[in-house]
Amino acid sequence: MTTAEVANRLVALCKEFKNFEAMETLYEPDIVSVEPFPGPDGSFETNGKAAVIQKSANWAQAHEIHAASVEGPYVGVDKFSVIFNFEITHKASGNRKHVREVGIYTMDGGLITREEFHVAHF
Amino acid sequence: MTTAEVANRLVALCKEFKNFEAMETLYEPDIVSVEPFPGPDGSFETNGKAAVIQKSANWAQAHEIHAASVEGPYVGVDKFSVIFNFEITHKASGNRKHVREVGIYTMDGGLITREEFHVAHF
Repeated sequence: MTTAEVANRLVALCKEFKNFEAMETLYEPDIVSVEPFPGPDGSFETNGKAAVIQKSANWAQAHEIHAASVEGPYVGVDKFSVIFNFEITHKASGNRKHVREVGIYTMDGGLITREEFHVAHF
Repeated sequence: MTTAEVANRLVALCKEFKNFEAMETLYEPDIVSVEPFPGPDGSFETNGKAAVIQKSANWAQAHEIHAASVEGPYVGVDKFSVIFNFEITHKASGNRKHVREVGIYTMDGGLITREEFHVAHF
Protein backbone atom coordinates (compact mmCIF):
# COMPACT_ATOMS: atom_id res chain seq x y z
CA MET A 1 0.00 0.00 0.00
CA THR A 2 1.10 3.57 -0.64
CA THR A 3 1.56 6.14 2.13
CA ALA A 4 -1.88 7.61 1.33
CA GLU A 5 -3.55 4.18 1.32
CA VAL A 6 -2.10 3.23 4.71
CA ALA A 7 -2.96 6.69 6.05
CA ASN A 8 -6.58 6.41 4.90
CA ARG A 9 -6.83 2.86 6.27
CA LEU A 10 -5.50 3.89 9.71
CA VAL A 11 -7.92 6.83 9.91
CA ALA A 12 -10.88 4.70 8.77
CA LEU A 13 -10.14 2.07 11.43
CA CYS A 14 -9.66 4.71 14.17
CA LYS A 15 -13.02 6.28 13.22
CA GLU A 16 -14.57 2.86 13.89
CA PHE A 17 -12.66 2.69 17.23
CA LYS A 18 -10.64 -0.20 15.77
CA ASN A 19 -7.30 1.29 16.83
CA PHE A 20 -5.94 -2.09 17.85
CA GLU A 21 -6.85 -3.62 14.48
CA ALA A 22 -4.94 -0.72 12.87
CA MET A 23 -1.86 -1.50 14.98
CA GLU A 24 -2.11 -5.25 14.39
CA THR A 25 -2.39 -4.94 10.62
CA LEU A 26 -0.40 -1.80 9.71
CA TYR A 27 2.57 -1.82 12.13
CA GLU A 28 5.93 -3.31 11.20
CA PRO A 29 7.30 -5.85 13.75
CA ASP A 30 10.19 -3.51 14.75
CA ILE A 31 8.08 -0.35 15.01
CA VAL A 32 9.36 2.41 17.30
CA SER A 33 6.84 4.54 19.22
CA VAL A 34 7.92 7.93 20.64
CA GLU A 35 5.87 9.74 23.29
CA PRO A 36 6.29 13.37 24.38
CA PHE A 37 6.68 12.29 28.03
CA PRO A 38 8.80 9.47 29.47
CA GLY A 39 7.08 6.21 30.43
CA PRO A 40 7.37 4.25 33.70
CA ASP A 41 10.87 3.08 32.69
CA GLY A 42 12.04 6.66 32.03
CA SER A 43 12.24 6.16 28.26
CA PHE A 44 10.42 8.17 25.61
CA GLU A 45 10.65 5.23 23.20
CA THR A 46 8.91 1.88 23.03
CA ASN A 47 10.37 -0.71 20.68
CA GLY A 48 8.58 -3.54 18.90
CA LYS A 49 4.98 -4.17 17.87
CA ALA A 50 4.00 -6.22 20.94
CA ALA A 51 5.35 -3.62 23.39
CA VAL A 52 3.75 -0.73 21.48
CA ILE A 53 0.36 -2.46 21.45
CA GLN A 54 0.74 -3.23 25.19
CA LYS A 55 1.49 0.45 25.87
CA SER A 56 -1.77 1.42 24.16
CA ALA A 57 -3.67 -1.28 26.03
CA ASN A 58 -2.26 0.02 29.34
CA TRP A 59 -3.32 3.56 28.45
CA ALA A 60 -6.84 2.44 27.49
CA GLN A 61 -7.10 0.43 30.73
CA ALA A 62 -5.99 3.39 32.86
CA HIS A 63 -8.54 5.82 31.40
CA GLU A 64 -12.24 6.11 30.88
CA ILE A 65 -12.66 7.35 27.31
CA HIS A 66 -15.75 9.58 27.03
CA ALA A 67 -15.19 10.66 23.44
CA ALA A 68 -12.62 10.11 20.72
CA SER A 69 -12.29 11.59 17.26
CA VAL A 70 -9.71 11.69 14.53
CA GLU A 71 -8.91 14.27 11.81
CA GLY A 72 -6.96 13.62 8.66
CA PRO A 73 -4.94 12.06 7.28
CA TYR A 74 -2.41 14.63 6.13
CA VAL A 75 -0.02 12.95 3.72
CA GLY A 76 3.65 13.56 2.90
CA VAL A 77 6.19 11.57 0.93
CA ASP A 78 6.96 8.66 3.27
CA LYS A 79 5.17 10.02 6.35
CA PHE A 80 1.65 11.05 7.27
CA SER A 81 -0.05 12.84 10.16
CA VAL A 82 -3.30 12.36 12.02
CA ILE A 83 -4.88 14.59 14.68
CA PHE A 84 -6.48 12.84 17.66
CA ASN A 85 -8.93 14.28 20.17
CA PHE A 86 -9.79 12.46 23.40
CA GLU A 87 -12.02 13.38 26.29
CA ILE A 88 -10.78 11.14 29.09
CA THR A 89 -10.80 10.56 32.83
CA HIS A 90 -7.71 9.08 34.45
CA LYS A 91 -9.31 6.37 36.57
CA ALA A 92 -6.77 6.41 39.43
CA SER A 93 -6.89 10.17 40.03
CA GLY A 94 -10.35 11.01 38.72
CA ASN A 95 -8.83 13.81 36.64
CA ARG A 96 -10.84 14.52 33.51
CA LYS A 97 -9.21 16.28 30.58
CA HIS A 98 -9.27 16.95 26.87
CA VAL A 99 -6.24 15.71 24.96
CA ARG A 100 -5.45 16.89 21.45
CA GLU A 101 -2.37 15.47 19.82
CA VAL A 102 -0.72 15.00 16.44
CA GLY A 103 0.46 11.51 15.50
CA ILE A 104 3.21 11.37 12.86
CA TYR A 105 3.68 8.03 11.11
CA THR A 106 6.70 6.94 9.07
CA MET A 107 6.29 4.28 6.37
CA ASP A 108 8.64 1.74 4.87
CA GLY A 109 7.75 -1.22 2.67
CA GLY A 110 4.01 -0.59 2.98
CA LEU A 111 3.98 -0.74 6.80
CA ILE A 112 4.34 1.80 9.60
CA THR A 113 7.84 1.71 11.11
CA ARG A 114 7.62 4.68 13.49
CA GLU A 115 4.91 6.65 15.29
CA GLU A 116 5.58 9.84 17.19
CA PHE A 117 3.12 11.93 19.20
CA HIS A 118 3.13 15.69 19.78
CA VAL A 119 0.81 17.28 22.36
CA ALA A 120 -0.61 20.73 22.93
CA HIS A 121 1.85 22.50 25.21
CA PHE A 122 0.87 25.30 27.56
CA MET B 1 15.77 27.64 23.42
CA THR B 2 13.93 24.40 24.14
CA THR B 3 11.70 22.64 21.60
CA ALA B 4 8.61 24.16 23.27
CA GLU B 5 10.13 27.66 23.30
CA VAL B 6 11.02 27.54 19.60
CA ALA B 7 7.59 26.03 18.81
CA ASN B 8 5.78 28.81 20.68
CA ARG B 9 7.99 31.46 19.07
CA LEU B 10 7.31 30.13 15.55
CA VAL B 11 3.54 30.05 16.15
CA ALA B 12 3.54 33.54 17.69
CA LEU B 13 5.40 34.96 14.68
CA CYS B 14 3.13 33.16 12.18
CA LYS B 15 0.05 34.53 13.98
CA GLU B 16 1.48 38.02 13.33
CA PHE B 17 2.09 37.02 9.64
CA LYS B 18 5.85 37.27 10.35
CA ASN B 19 6.60 33.87 8.76
CA PHE B 20 9.76 35.19 7.12
CA GLU B 21 11.06 36.54 10.44
CA ALA B 22 10.43 33.05 11.89
CA MET B 23 12.49 31.46 9.11
CA GLU B 24 15.29 34.05 9.36
CA THR B 25 15.67 33.70 13.11
CA LEU B 26 14.77 30.06 13.88
CA TYR B 27 16.13 28.09 10.89
CA GLU B 28 19.56 26.46 10.91
CA PRO B 29 21.78 27.35 7.87
CA ASP B 30 21.64 23.77 6.53
CA ILE B 31 17.89 23.28 7.04
CA VAL B 32 16.14 20.74 4.81
CA SER B 33 12.54 21.40 3.70
CA VAL B 34 10.38 18.52 2.43
CA GLU B 35 7.17 19.12 0.47
CA PRO B 36 4.48 16.52 -0.33
CA PHE B 37 4.76 17.31 -4.04
CA PRO B 38 7.90 17.72 -6.18
CA GLY B 39 9.03 21.24 -7.06
CA PRO B 40 9.98 22.64 -10.50
CA ASP B 41 13.29 20.70 -10.39
CA GLY B 42 11.49 17.41 -9.65
CA SER B 43 12.79 17.18 -6.08
CA PHE B 44 10.71 16.98 -2.91
CA GLU B 45 13.56 18.50 -0.90
CA THR B 46 15.01 21.98 -0.70
CA ASN B 47 18.37 22.36 1.01
CA GLY B 48 19.74 25.40 2.84
CA LYS B 49 18.16 28.38 4.55
CA ALA B 50 18.43 30.77 1.57
CA ALA B 51 16.81 28.29 -0.83
CA VAL B 52 14.05 27.40 1.65
CA ILE B 53 13.21 31.07 2.23
CA GLN B 54 13.24 31.67 -1.55
CA LYS B 55 10.81 28.76 -2.01
CA SER B 56 8.39 30.38 0.44
CA ALA B 57 8.82 33.76 -1.23
CA ASN B 58 8.03 32.19 -4.62
CA TRP B 59 4.90 30.57 -3.17
CA ALA B 60 3.72 33.83 -1.60
CA GLN B 61 4.39 35.66 -4.90
CA ALA B 62 2.40 33.09 -6.92
CA HIS B 63 -0.71 33.27 -4.70
CA GLU B 64 -3.14 35.82 -3.37
CA ILE B 65 -3.56 34.95 0.31
CA HIS B 66 -7.10 35.77 1.45
CA ALA B 67 -6.78 34.30 4.95
CA ALA B 68 -4.17 32.46 6.99
CA SER B 69 -4.34 30.91 10.43
CA VAL B 70 -2.20 28.64 12.54
CA GLU B 71 -3.05 26.08 15.26
CA GLY B 72 -0.66 24.72 17.84
CA PRO B 73 2.06 24.12 18.58
CA TYR B 74 2.00 20.41 19.42
CA VAL B 75 5.29 19.49 21.07
CA GLY B 76 7.29 16.27 21.14
CA VAL B 77 10.81 15.48 22.31
CA ASP B 78 12.96 17.06 19.58
CA LYS B 79 10.17 17.80 17.12
CA PHE B 80 6.97 19.84 17.09
CA SER B 81 3.95 20.21 14.81
CA VAL B 82 1.87 23.16 13.67
CA ILE B 83 -1.37 23.13 11.64
CA PHE B 84 -1.71 25.76 8.91
CA ASN B 85 -4.86 26.90 7.13
CA PHE B 86 -4.74 29.05 4.02
CA GLU B 87 -7.45 30.41 1.76
CA ILE B 88 -5.60 31.23 -1.46
CA THR B 89 -5.98 31.99 -5.13
CA HIS B 90 -3.28 30.80 -7.52
CA LYS B 91 -2.72 34.01 -9.50
CA ALA B 92 -1.77 32.34 -12.82
CA SER B 93 -4.79 30.03 -12.99
CA GLY B 94 -7.31 31.94 -10.90
CA ASN B 95 -8.00 28.75 -8.94
CA ARG B 96 -9.12 29.49 -5.39
CA LYS B 97 -8.79 26.84 -2.72
CA HIS B 98 -8.51 26.07 0.96
CA VAL B 99 -5.28 24.43 2.06
CA ARG B 100 -4.91 22.69 5.42
CA GLU B 101 -1.55 21.18 6.20
CA VAL B 102 0.57 19.92 9.07
CA GLY B 103 4.11 21.24 9.39
CA ILE B 104 6.52 19.02 11.35
CA TYR B 105 9.69 20.68 12.61
CA THR B 106 12.85 18.94 13.85
CA MET B 107 15.14 20.74 16.29
CA ASP B 108 18.86 20.50 16.99
CA GLY B 109 20.99 22.89 19.03
CA GLY B 110 18.09 25.30 19.59
CA LEU B 111 17.36 25.80 15.88
CA ILE B 112 15.08 24.14 13.32
CA THR B 113 17.03 21.72 11.10
CA ARG B 114 14.16 20.18 9.12
CA GLU B 115 10.60 21.08 8.13
CA GLU B 116 8.21 18.67 6.49
CA PHE B 117 4.68 19.34 5.25
CA HIS B 118 1.75 16.92 5.06
CA VAL B 119 -1.44 17.87 3.22
CA ALA B 120 -5.04 16.70 3.31
CA HIS B 121 -5.28 13.94 0.74
CA PHE B 122 -8.47 13.05 -1.08
